[in-house]
Formats: sequence, structure tokens, C-alpha cells
Amino acid sequence: MRGGILMQTLSKTEQKFTELKTRLVEVNDLSAAASLLQWDQSTYMPVGGGPARARQMATLQQLAHEKFIAPQIGQLLADLGDYEASLPVDDDAASLLRVTRHDYQEACQIPAQFMARLSNHVATTYEVWTRARPANDFTLVQPYLEKTLAFSQEMAQFFPGYEHIADPLIGFADYGMKTSTTRALFAELRNQLVPLVQQVTSQPLTDRSCLQQYFPEADQLAFGLAVIREFGYDFTRGRQDKTHHPFMTKFSLGDVRITTRVREHDLTEAVFSTLHEAGHALYEQGINPSYEGTPLASGTSAGVHESQSRLWENLVGRSREFWQFFYPRLQQCFPGQLGAVELETFYRAINRVERSLIRTDADELTYNLHVMIRFELELALLEGKLAVKDLPEAWNEAYRANLGLVPTTLSEGVLQDVHWYGGTIGGAFQGYTLGNLMSAQFYEAAQFAYPEIPAEMSQGRFDRLHGWLRQHIYQHGRKYNAAEVVEQATGQPLTIQPYLRYIRRKYGELYDL
Amino acid sequence: MRGGILMQTLSKTEQKFTELKTRLVEVNDLSAAASLLQWDQSTYMPVGGGPARARQMATLQQLAHEKFIAPQIGQLLADLGDYEASLPVDDDAASLLRVTRHDYQEACQIPAQFMARLSNHVATTYEVWTRARPANDFTLVQPYLEKTLAFSQEMAQFFPGYEHIADPLIGFADYGMKTSTTRALFAELRNQLVPLVQQVTSQPLTDRSCLQQYFPEADQLAFGLAVIREFGYDFTRGRQDKTHHPFMTKFSLGDVRITTRVREHDLTEAVFSTLHEAGHALYEQGINPSYEGTPLASGTSAGVHESQSRLWENLVGRSREFWQFFYPRLQQCFPGQLGAVELETFYRAINRVERSLIRTDADELTYNLHVMIRFELELALLEGKLAVKDLPEAWNEAYRANLGLVPTTLSEGVLQDVHWYGGTIGGAFQGYTLGNLMSAQFYEAAQFAYPEIPAEMSQGRFDRLHGWLRQHIYQHGRKYNAAEVVEQATGQPLTIQPYLRYIRRKYGELYDL
Repeated sequence: MRGGILMQTLSKTEQKFTELKTRLVEVNDLSAAASLLQWDQSTYMPVGGGPARARQMATLQQLAHEKFIAPQIGQLLADLGDYEASLPVDDDAASLLRVTRHDYQEACQIPAQFMARLSNHVATTYEVWTRARPANDFTLVQPYLEKTLAFSQEMAQFFPGYEHIADPLIGFADYGMKTSTTRALFAELRNQLVPLVQQVTSQPLTDRSCLQQYFPEADQLAFGLAVIREFGYDFTRGRQDKTHHPFMTKFSLGDVRITTRVREHDLTEAVFSTLHEAGHALYEQGINPSYEGTPLASGTSAGVHESQSRLWENLVGRSREFWQFFYPRLQQCFPGQLGAVELETFYRAINRVERSLIRTDADELTYNLHVMIRFELELALLEGKLAVKDLPEAWNEAYRANLGLVPTTLSEGVLQDVHWYGGTIGGAFQGYTLGNLMSAQFYEAAQFAYPEIPAEMSQGRFDRLHGWLRQHIYQHGRKYNAAEVVEQATGQPLTIQPYLRYIRRKYGELYDL
Repeated sequence: MRGGILMQTLSKTEQKFTELKTRLVEVNDLSAAASLLQWDQSTYMPVGGGPARARQMATLQQLAHEKFIAPQIGQLLADLGDYEASLPVDDDAASLLRVTRHDYQEACQIPAQFMARLSNHVATTYEVWTRARPANDFTLVQPYLEKTLAFSQEMAQFFPGYEHIADPLIGFADYGMKTSTTRALFAELRNQLVPLVQQVTSQPLTDRSCLQQYFPEADQLAFGLAVIREFGYDFTRGRQDKTHHPFMTKFSLGDVRITTRVREHDLTEAVFSTLHEAGHALYEQGINPSYEGTPLASGTSAGVHESQSRLWENLVGRSREFWQFFYPRLQQCFPGQLGAVELETFYRAINRVERSLIRTDADELTYNLHVMIRFELELALLEGKLAVKDLPEAWNEAYRANLGLVPTTLSEGVLQDVHWYGGTIGGAFQGYTLGNLMSAQFYEAAQFAYPEIPAEMSQGRFDRLHGWLRQHIYQHGRKYNAAEVVEQATGQPLTIQPYLRYIRRKYGELYDL
């Protein structure tokens, strides 16, 4: 009799768990469809498709949101609370319930009305920005950005109890990180970086003319694809297309795509953007397939995601060992251009450090300064210490202080990045530097486990590195949060030391410091 | 005072009409998203995306269906009944309400449960067919096809009061056509066609070796695109990609795409499939832009749609006048292959008549026999006069009787076309022949209005023909049904006479009859 009741209870739980998963998969499918519409818009869509496409993506995203915050999902999560509590915390079902509950609460705390107003506003602001940037006219976007700031501050209010107003916004992208901890990490990092950059950039500028020859598009693309195939990017579950601003996107664990762009007079654009996006894609392709369609089937934070794009782009893709294997192959692709260029010349060219104004073109050493400038400006805006009208001035001043350069046009300055004009203010930038820090910490741990990794790399073999990353990071998806992944994979919390060791060794050697 | 009430009433009506349109646009957006997922699956999707993609398309289609049959739409249609009645029948708003009401009633008459079971069944059947066809094994699909037949018969029962069980199924694709009328048209057509085919095919086979040389893919594609640009296909609102089975698809009136396939040893495949799909696309691109996102923004029937693909592919694209202009250009593309081939030789090659087994490869003269064979078999199955197990035999017998040929393999026989294995039985084929008939009737009317059309065509000018079609057919979308469009555009109901005149003149001259 009791057995019968227990069976019945179990099967009711199973039923509810299955119903929850079915609902989550439906939400996921709507979001995935919106992502495909976005991918298509960025790759193949004819211009005439624009107006309807914007409307269609909005429809899908809104429906996904409505379906996710449905009271039935709340009820199922409540009903399954005891079940979750009965399971070990790292059980897959328990993890799915935990992560879903977190997302559900987050989504429910933001009123649907507010989200609708916000996304309308963001769509308009983005459109204005696309005109303001080429015109170098901040006054065009200023009133919109002021409203964005108000929206961002209002957004934070839906999550009371924060320590700093930016915390909820940072938490969306990098769950678990707070303003205070991020600021502390960044302050320490800046203290180390600024003098290092000074030392390096006081030396004569490295010659990179070997990279600025004519390299036909098709050959550049073919080379990039050949590299990421060796990395382990699975082309039966992905593909690469051309776009204006490269990105990685996923429609399911069986379909993780990347995009790139090519400059025929700069070899680095297509190659390194391909390696970068492939890093993101390797992460998504490596997630446990049994998580397909659920909230677990995704990278766990902006920082961890970026750690993978930067690891494959920089720690692997700008290393001497990597090019020991691939440079002869690159020379075969471009014998006329590179046949007479030494590996060492090429290696120095792709690792040239230079104080510059554009974040996305920055080298490994200065990149984080660009990020930290934006992060601090975001905080000042949110705190009310900086008015939007004073932002261009503050931007320029920060560049002067950190990089010793001042933008001469606003499109090289405050109008440079899409983030504030295509979303909220706060939480958009810290992930880039967190990712750089993590990339070194992960790579150091992998090398500690397998000291042969660099030697293997110089023979074009990446399976051990890829395997380590898959085992310690990729497979888990969102089962563990960023802090847990870092701790489990490396045995310690996030720290800037591995990153500093990495850049000191690499650039110390490159610049004889 | 009364003015105030009237105003209020008007504004309430307007409000409801706007709400209805908003809901219809949402349904449209979900369907459009499903279409994009389908397009992507047929063009660029990596194989690993398959399982999730099928699920995602099903989710979107089901949601679109649910949203469309929502009781709120029924209520709005009821509330707007007086408004509709107050408007002239050809008013746009009245037409939208009329067409929406028709679709709504049709959709509501089929239970959601049934639709879900049917689409599951169809998905499985399709998958089995993809294995059965290369294996030439009908027994694999037979039990599934038996179930499909039962489903199809059950489907008809949701629309009681029909004259023939196939009528509701024919009505989905070709609203207004019935089994009796279609059968009568087809019987008359067959009586004329069979002896004509006999006469023509008793002559020696035309040499088409000039078409079977090596024609590089890129050049074939470029030529096809150049032609349809002259037709008036708008590339700012469309594009062409490669696929296995060419199709046209639409995501909005601003994004109407076509696909093609290339055989490098057969010039006709890419060129004529491009012209064919462009014909479908010209129709959709020509719809009144104010219908965007509503049920009016679509071709009005399978038959009228096919009339446009066949008109541009055959009546234009296989005419002597067309090639008088384009053949010198084709020779420029392929000087080695065609430089020494006379226009007349080429013209005869692309119009060779041949008794054959494959519908999609058939020439203009025999094509309709293939269609009518399938149409009669569908009817016999639905009527219960033919058992599924006897279908392969019946297929072969029909080919012997109509074309004097018997398939030696099932993949050239009953397993050839996807229609029955990827949908229901009934209503899938008549549109092809209705389209052929209409194409000639429309073209004759256009030529009657503008006798200079063929002469203009021989100078590469298609604007007058395209303009006539846009004015009389394209712009209206679904505002008028097929019978109304035919009547308005040509001044008479659908008849086989223009088609017979067309083929008698063309093939009479080609074969000296």
C-alpha cells in the first residue's frame, strides 16, 4: 500500500518534471528561432526584409518571455521544490531546477510592461546611434542615452537589497560577480598594467607591414577553417558565414555557428576573429547533449564564455608554439606575401603592443584598459556621479589617463561601441576582462595537469587541451556558476596572478623587459 | 450628441479591427519564422541541427495555429461582421475580414488534437520515405501510407456536406475547385493530350546533346540571375541560394527568396528552375505592400501560383522570342560549349518532347499526364476503390495507359514524389495542371491587351508583361479567389482552350504536325 503511494508520488513528480522540461524546451525553441532570424539578418537577409524582421524577432522574444514567466512554470517549480531538495546539489535534475528557478525569479521581477518599453526604447536608440556614429554627433543620442540610464537605474530597483546599483546588472551577465569584487580585481590589474604598457610602448613600434599585404578573401577563409577544424570545431554541428560584426550563435547543441569578416589588406581580422568565435563555439558544442533545449544548455557567464574565445584566440592563437606548426602552412597559402617573412617577424607582428583608441582592435596588453575605462564610466553613470552630457569629456579624460591618448573624433571615442546604445548601461563590459583573467587561469591549470600541451600545440595537436576544457568547463553548461567552474577547474578562486604571469612572461620576452 | 456616439462606435470598430490585425500579424510572424527555419534547413543548416530544428518548426507552427484559432479572433470576427457588411465587397478591409473568416472557420473545424497526431505521423512517414525511396521498397512505407489515407479521409469528415470526399482537401490548396469540375477539365485535357503526345513521340527524338556538356556552376548561376533581374525580380527584396529541391519562400513582402540546384552536365536544371521559382517570387513580390503580415499577403491558390511559375518558365522562358534575346548572351557565357550551336538547335533541344517516368523532368506536353495520373490515383484511394497495397501496381498501369511506359524501379514509380509521404493524400497535385491551364489563359489575355509582348520579349523587355500580371493578378494577393482572378483578368472562367491553342501552335510548328 505504501509502495503504491510512493510509486504514485514518484510518478507525479516525474510527470511534473517532464511537464516543466516540455515548457522550457518550448521557450528555448522560441528563443532559438529568434536567434536564427538574427543570424539570417546579419548574414544573408536582403535589405527589404528589415522592417518585418525586427517585428518578427520582437514577437518571438516577447512570446518566449511570456511563456517563461507563465504562472504554471512557477507552480511547477514550487511543486518540485521537495524533489530538488532530495537530490544531491550537483545532480542534473537538481541543477536544472536551481538554474531555472534563478532565471524564473529574475524574469518575474521585471514587469512585462517595463520590458516592452525598454526594448522599444533600445530599438530606437540603436537606430539613432547608427546615424550618430558616422556623423560624430553625440547630441543626437544624448537624450536617448539619458533615458537608457534612467531605464538601467529603474531596472536595478527591481532587485532590491543590492550592495551597489550596478550589481543586479552585472549579475545578469556574470552571475555571482559584484561591483565591489570586480572593482577590486580591476584596480589591482590596472596598477600592474599601466606601468607595463608604459614600458612596452616606450620602445619603438614593431613592424607589422607583413600583415598588411593583399591576402585574397577565399584563402584567408580557408586557412581559418583549417585551423579551427584542428581545434576540434565540429562542422557537422556548425558552419561559418560572413558578416559585418563577427559573432557566435547557437540554435541547438547540434547547430552552433560562427561568423567572421575579412579585410583583404589585413591578415589578422579574419584569422583571429575566426579563432575567437570558434572559442565561443567550442564551449557551446562541448555542453552535455542531455541538456539540449533546457536552461542548462548554455555557457555559464559572459566571463567564462569570453575566457574561451580569448583562450583560443590569444593564449593558443597568438602563441609561438601555435605558429611553429601553422606558420609554414600559412606561408603555403600565401607564398608571395609571406614566403620570405621569418616566423619570428610574423610572431612579433601579430603581438605588437600599441596604445590605441579602438577596443576591438587592441592588443592583449592594452585591451583590458579599454574595458576598465568603460566599466568605471558605467559605474559613475549609474551612481549619478557622471551626467550623460559629460560622458564624451569623461571618456576622453579616461583615455588620456590610462592610455595617454585622446580620441579626435567621437566615433573613435564615446560612440565607438554598440553596447550602451543597443542595451542597458551596466554589466556589459566587465565580462571581457573577467574572461581574459579566467583564460590565463584555466590555461595554467590545464598546463599544470598536462605540461605537454605547448609541445603538442607546436605539432598541431589540440586534443588534450580541448579535452581538458571540455571536461572541466564545457560539458557542465550552466550547471555550475562561474565561481564554481573556476574553483573546480583550477583549485582556487578567480585571481589576476595567472594572467599577470602570462603577460609578464610573454611580453617580457618579446620586449626584453 | 448622435455624432459623439457615432464617433465612439467608429472608434470601437477601428479598435477591434486594429486588434484583429495585430493578432493576425503575430500569427503571420510565427509562421514566417517557421518558414525561415525551413529555408535554413534546406540551404545552410549543418546536419547536426536536424533533430532540434524539426522540433522548433513544430513548436512555431503549433503556436501559430493556437494563436490563430484563439476564441478572441472568433469574437473579433463576429463583432466586425456588421462593419464588413457595410463595406463594398472589394474593399481591402472587407476582403481581409472575408479571407480571415474563411481561414478561421477552416482552421477551427480541424481539432488541434487531430492536427498534432497528423503532423507527428507525417514527420515519421517522411523519414521512412527517405529510406524507402533509395531502397525501392514500398513495403517500408505502406503501413504509414495506409494511416495517411485514413487521416486524409478523417480530415475530409471535418467538412461535412461535400459532394466528393476529396473536395475539402482540394479546397485547401485550390479554394473553389471541386473534384467534379477538376475531373471534367482534366478528362477533356487528357483526350486532347494523349493523341498529341502520341503523334509527337512517334517522331525521332530531338537531339539535346548541346545541353549536356560541362557548364560550370558559377556561370550557370550568374546567367539565371541575369535573366530574372530582367524579369523584374527585386534583389533588394529577395535572393537565391542553392538547395536540393528548389522552392520559393517568403518571410515578408520585403523578403521573398528562391532556391535552385545546379547540374554541371545539364544546362536546363538551374536555368529553368530559376525561372520557375522566380515566377512564384514575382507573384509574391508584387502583392500590395499594405497587406503585409495579414492573410491577404499571399498567392491566392496553388493553381494561380503555379500559373506564374509556369508562365515565366515555359511560356516566356521556353519561347523562341525569349531566346532570340538571351541565346547570344548564353553563348557569351559558354562560348566553347554553345558558340557553334544554332539558336534553332538549342530551341528545339530545350523543347524536346519525350515520354518519361519522372514528373519534375517532364516536358510541357507530357507534364500534365503525370499530374493527372496522380490526381486520379488520389481520388481512387480516397474513394476506397484502390487499396494502398495495390498502389504501386495501379501507378505502373496508369503510366502504361497514359504514357506507354512502365517504371522499372519504385523510385521512378510510386515512391517518386514527396507529396503523399510528406502530407495528406488528396489536393496536392491538381494545382500543377490548373496552373498550366491558367498560365496560357493569362498569357493569351495579356497578349490580347498588348500584342507587342512577344516582340518586346525578343528585345529583352518584360516590363509590359510583368506590369499586366502585377495589375491583374499579383497586387491582389488573396483578395480575390482563383476563379475571380481568372474571370477578372481574362474575361472568362477557367478553360482548357488557351492552353490547347498554345501547345498546338508551339508543338505543331516544332514537330510539323
